[in-house]
Amino acid sequence: MAELRTTEINAGTGFSRIFVGESLDNLARHCRKGTFLVTDQNVHRLYGGRFPDFPVKVLPAGEKNKTLALVEQIYAFLMEQGADRDCLVVGVGGGVVCDMAGFAASTYLRGVSCGLCPTTLLAQVDAGVGGKTGVNFSGYKNMVGTFSQPEFVLCDPEVLSTLAPEDLACGFAEMVKHGAITDAAYFARMEDLCQQALELDPEAVSELVHGSVRIKAGVVSRDEREGGLRRILNFGHTFGHALEKGGRLPHGFAVSMGMAAAARLSVARGLLRPQDAERLIALLRRYRLPVEISGYDPSELADALFRDKKRAGDAVRFVLLKEIGKAEVVPISLAELGRVAEKLY
Amino acid sequence: MAELRTTEINAGTGFSRIFVGESLDNLARHCRKGTFLVTDQNVHRLYGGRFPDFPVKVLPAGEKNKTLALVEQIYAFLMEQGADRDCLVVGVGGGVVCDMAGFAASTYLRGVSCGLCPTTLLAQVDAGVGGKTGVNFSGYKNMVGTFSQPEFVLCDPEVLSTLAPEDLACGFAEMVKHGAITDAAYFARMEDLCQQALELDPEAVSELVHGSVRIKAGVVSRDEREGGLRRILNFGHTFGHALEKGGRLPHGFAVSMGMAAAARLSVARGLLRPQDAERLIALLRRYRLPVEISGYDPSELADALFRDKKRAGDAVRFVLLKEIGKAEVVPISLAELGRVAEKLY
Repeated sequence: MAELRTTEINAGTGFSRIFVGESLDNLARHCRKGTFLVTDQNVHRLYGGRFPDFPVKVLPAGEKNKTLALVEQIYAFLMEQGADRDCLVVGVGGGVVCDMAGFAASTYLRGVSCGLCPTTLLAQVDAGVGGKTGVNFSGYKNMVGTFSQPEFVLCDPEVLSTLAPEDLACGFAEMVKHGAITDAAYFARMEDLCQQALELDPEAVSELVHGSVRIKAGVVSRDEREGGLRRILNFGHTFGHALEKGGRLPHGFAVSMGMAAAARLSVARGLLRPQDAERLIALLRRYRLPVEISGYDPSELADALFRDKKRAGDAVRFVLLKEIGKAEVVPISLAELGRVAEKLY
Repeated sequence: MAELRTTEINAGTGFSRIFVGESLDNLARHCRKGTFLVTDQNVHRLYGGRFPDFPVKVLPAGEKNKTLALVEQIYAFLMEQGADRDCLVVGVGGGVVCDMAGFAASTYLRGVSCGLCPTTLLAQVDAGVGGKTGVNFSGYKNMVGTFSQPEFVLCDPEVLSTLAPEDLACGFAEMVKHGAITDAAYFARMEDLCQQALELDPEAVSELVHGSVRIKAGVVSRDEREGGLRRILNFGHTFGHALEKGGRLPHGFAVSMGMAAAARLSVARGLLRPQDAERLIALLRRYRLPVEISGYDPSELADALFRDKKRAGDAVRFVLLKEIGKAEVVPISLAELGRVAEKLY
């Protein structure tokens, strides 16, 4: 096991402690009487035998099940089990499980405690950190949710070994993003350790996951509710969510393509040097991520963008890059977007 | 129109301003571009013509419709209307509308602004004040919800004139409660102004509503999330929710019967003088409220109590009275409750 690294988030909705390099076998140490576990079928099949001895709700797996209907199943489970206000709900799984367990915990009896044990690389650096909870609604991602910090987050690098290469790549996309928007030194470490990370060397993965968690925690501590600064975490996500809408793409692939498109938009606006965009796109490629959005209909994309949560009036707030490690939120009208559309491909 | 009185709540989840004596006709002054109204069929029929000119979602009326399914209709309405993060959702109606509009606003896009215009006396002194939102689930009241302060609450005494006497009585039950648990002087004003209040004299109603709002606001400002002090607001509610479960009783009637039962339990425990219990019960009767729980099966009651949100382990936290104006939270085991059951009738 790699060295244990700890990060703390102190935000309006609570205090959160994130342990990177902690084994799933130690989850029981973070639990207490009145703990209830929420997981999905895949995670339960692979790791259920290592869960601590508490009641478990096993949900069907997959983004398409990230719905209020499934959250209602969690409420019903908690009620059947007699869970009271002092209970602790622990989500063990990928981003879907973490987001749904977090939402259920933050609304059951108007809010009970929550812990998370993210089992994918993406969830360890993204959904597990920062207190965003939620579900999809009517085909749109995370339309319904809350801001609510989990008490603890436990990230075990060992469980990543069962991930498909595609799922690993999705995690790397978020990590590259964290470097690109806030931290050139971390971005350079993502370049240096690329080969070891792809081979899941535990020490390299732990260093990079911890670095990524620290970046996200720093942003979230300063702006939990996305009044301003936190918006930069949406780099790649505005295009990404629109690309993802059809349900054809894994989230990280969509974000990678979205980052490439946003970098090209930054260059088209004269904000970013072309060679910095190329450096970002090259690193995404090295992490086996797609960077081309050809094949997507520009008018379908525009329609999906218009419904994006980050829309303010007639403009969409895009996160653009100024250099590697520096981002800026820029409202861009749909008209302008139409004019530069061909430069994004 | 009576004098305009303002109360402020500054709690963890936000700042709230409550205007007592403000006309519904002035609601537009509190709204802005991007406002969406939520109401029910009854309120819309009576007052829809006086609503400001914003899109309106009209829900079916009644406690049985206080469900996640109806909240989903509010989400769908907001999405269809293109409501973004800067929008304002205003609930105009009784407690059911206020709680559902508040819950929808606090979870749509992870939380948008909310305003309330409670149109029943009960909602003006209870649901509209304090930031509790939520819906019923699986037959139990308010199992799912959030703590989230509305930006503003507008209480118009004139709209109370269309209420049924039974609905008025429900509001008076909460107001008597506020006096009983925290403020002997306010309790005495409820005694002094009883006749004028029953006749809906605007000045008397405004004075009493404002006094009640101030009491609740004071408690909520000090303890928004019900860690301790706020629990005293549940006086009468533990029995009340259990009595209400069958769906036969209006909320305020159940709370009145619950207060009488809790006062008798306080006397049985030697905490309260019998004449103080009698004084409370007499005032409830003057406000045309029921005070006897005969007719309810003790074992059904105990079963419903055991599922109450206020349960902590094997004991239920009851709010008991020490004197008029002073309450205390006391954990009482189901065994003890069984032993004194006949004294509650």
